[in-house]
Amino acid sequence: MSRDLTISFPRLRARIDALAELGATDAGGSCRLALTDADKEGRDLVVTWMRDLGLRVDIDTIGNVIGTWPPQRTDPPVLMGSHIDTVATGGIYDGCLGVLAGLEVLESVITAGISIDHPLAVAFFTDEEGSRFAPDMLGSLVFAGGMSVEEALSVESVDGAVLGDELARIGYAGVEPCPARPPHAYIELHIEQGPVLEAEGYTIGAVTGVQGISWTEVTITGQSNHAGTTPMAMRHDAGYAAARVATFVRELVTDAGPPQVGTVGRIELHPSLVNVVAATARLTVDLRNTDDAVLSRVEKELHAFLVDLAQAEGVTVETRALARFEPVAFDPDVVTLVEKVAAEQGHSVKRLPSGAGHDAQMLARLCPAGMVFVPSVKGISHNPAEHTADADLEAGANVLLQCVLRMARIEA
Amino acid sequence: MSRDLTISFPRLRARIDALAELGATDAGGSCRLALTDADKEGRDLVVTWMRDLGLRVDIDTIGNVIGTWPPQRTDPPVLMGSHIDTVATGGIYDGCLGVLAGLEVLESVITAGISIDHPLAVAFFTDEEGSRFAPDMLGSLVFAGGMSVEEALSVESVDGAVLGDELARIGYAGVEPCPARPPHAYIELHIEQGPVLEAEGYTIGAVTGVQGISWTEVTITGQSNHAGTTPMAMRHDAGYAAARVATFVRELVTDAGPPQVGTVGRIELHPSLVNVVAATARLTVDLRNTDDAVLSRVEKELHAFLVDLAQAEGVTVETRALARFEPVAFDPDVVTLVEKVAAEQGHSVKRLPSGAGHDAQMLARLCPAGMVFVPSVKGISHNPAEHTADADLEAGANVLLQCVLRMARIEA
Repeated sequence: MSRDLTISFPRLRARIDALAELGATDAGGSCRLALTDADKEGRDLVVTWMRDLGLRVDIDTIGNVIGTWPPQRTDPPVLMGSHIDTVATGGIYDGCLGVLAGLEVLESVITAGISIDHPLAVAFFTDEEGSRFAPDMLGSLVFAGGMSVEEALSVESVDGAVLGDELARIGYAGVEPCPARPPHAYIELHIEQGPVLEAEGYTIGAVTGVQGISWTEVTITGQSNHAGTTPMAMRHDAGYAAARVATFVRELVTDAGPPQVGTVGRIELHPSLVNVVAATARLTVDLRNTDDAVLSRVEKELHAFLVDLAQAEGVTVETRALARFEPVAFDPDVVTLVEKVAAEQGHSVKRLPSGAGHDAQMLARLCPAGMVFVPSVKGISHNPAEHTADADLEAGANVLLQCVLRMARIEA
Repeated sequence: MSRDLTISFPRLRARIDALAELGATDAGGSCRLALTDADKEGRDLVVTWMRDLGLRVDIDTIGNVIGTWPPQRTDPPVLMGSHIDTVATGGIYDGCLGVLAGLEVLESVITAGISIDHPLAVAFFTDEEGSRFAPDMLGSLVFAGGMSVEEALSVESVDGAVLGDELARIGYAGVEPCPARPPHAYIELHIEQGPVLEAEGYTIGAVTGVQGISWTEVTITGQSNHAGTTPMAMRHDAGYAAARVATFVRELVTDAGPPQVGTVGRIELHPSLVNVVAATARLTVDLRNTDDAVLSRVEKELHAFLVDLAQAEGVTVETRALARFEPVAFDPDVVTLVEKVAAEQGHSVKRLPSGAGHDAQMLARLCPAGMVFVPSVKGISHNPAEHTADADLEAGANVLLQCVLRMARIEA
């Protein structure tokens, strides 16, 4: 019975550890920034595993890689996937878990000789992290038709390289067209990257959607002055104004209540000296909510506050939108399926939105899509200390397996 | 009559401009960080001018240089002075005005053949700015016995050089002992470096003293977390905490009222990314007041707030005292003399404290001391745009001349 089928955790564990060795950092994490030599090594390893399993490996024009079973099938598959690029201080699970669990699901199905209605496939998408080439989720965005291949190939990295050049250099400029033909369905296993599941004692998250994201860069220009000789009433302090924006963001999201979150993660003052009133300040505001109406209202309140602050402190305030994504709702049937399968397998399961962006939100433009979350210890991610317990990794992979089998309407 | 004697402004102006050419920056300012090659060039030029005037030039063990007239006199002089080192982004008046106006006063007196009871002298003190070797006012501090020569010579610069090595390298390791014998009196002409005189329409400031200074470095350790996936209630946000300290400092000094000032000029977050809750933050708090009791109370309130903030945000807060100077009151007779001479010369004059530190506050430990301020346009200093109108430079130098003549109890 296919309902009794489970994945081989030792095999999954071995693949996670083998991939982690490429671009391994001293701190125990991974550094495989998109389209670097380390990323190429990771890609080559996963492609080798795909070929060893007998999958057909297709590479598209933006470097997304899909392995399909049975290899001769070209009709829309049930697609699993995620990414294998990392941030500079990456952990070993972010992205990799979804790709390698997908590979493990395929190996389990193939080994068991189970016949399926729809083909199965596993993908890794180019440059999900966006650490080297902006924006993040670039590969799946192009896959879903949200950005043209030409535009994407001309993106310049922070180190001055051009994406298309780097893609060709590492041998991953493929021929499959983008936007891609819609898959039959898409499902992605991922670590939560947040603390909720662990804190509340759940093993599985049935992800309802992805929060809307609003990133704003705020540049404040005041007047550099001597910290000792300038009376408070005569100051135009860009540093104070920046700090006041950060405390206002906290007030704003506290008033709005959960799930609204807001973060000022970057503040840079100039000249940044103990005894000089800062002349200029640059900071970023990250606002997220699953409810776009609330998110838009919070954005408006922030902008109104900035106008008042500029007036009160005698500074100029300029804003620049760095990113704005509307919330994405995953397919209700997929969410329900994840919840049902998890419960059948005896796991505690919680519906929750994703606070981070994922390739699944791009795939949701093409086909019914959803995600499975497993707990992140202390919510730590983008950090070598990123960790998920083996039992949770295994539970997540088995939930993925059974969801995929039902989405592919298999017969035993 | 010595009361009719005035300085030659074209000569003073020419010396200011000639010194400004050494270490000149593209922006029109000067960069002569203490004990660099540029500082040596500046020192050599001023020493040449001293020798050309027939002064006896003495160099002490910390590199302070004093030119005395008449050269054979070794009894305590009426000393003028300031410094010729600059910050990296220095203007051309800070410090240099006091030294070159002192030189001009000496040339005027010598040329006029006026006889004096006390010898006259002009000094430039080593490393007043503290930009390369901490603390600031190092040369005058050692001169006044506030720091041993041995300790001062072993200070390491931000670039790894040792003060004593650099002093010897540029040829200014002299033999005169520190602490020095007390001068008869000390008076320093300086630009205000603040906006008060200009804003209120005064030409001359009779400086009553120097504000007490308290510098604290605050290091906050929180938890790096994903900006999207971490509910607000589960955050330990070092960036928010740093911002809250900065806004609290504003509240604190506003409550205390003038002359209390407070500045958070430096805030550094780590990792400083748009989508990551900051793990750590480092900031500085600069608090100043002429009233030490109020300054101490404000410091206590800040520390109490930091304890509460650490508790509320679930972060750790460590503080390190970077500097603490008690307020200095200048000699009342010198303050009155400056006020009187300025009024006699037809200038508007205001008593005010100095918000910045000056060599005069160290000399006040040794002898009756005071300062003359002239306006800084828009209060700008430590900046190539630092400016004082020629008429104000001339007025300040003439007030200095007449103050010095009376402090030296001259006879026509």
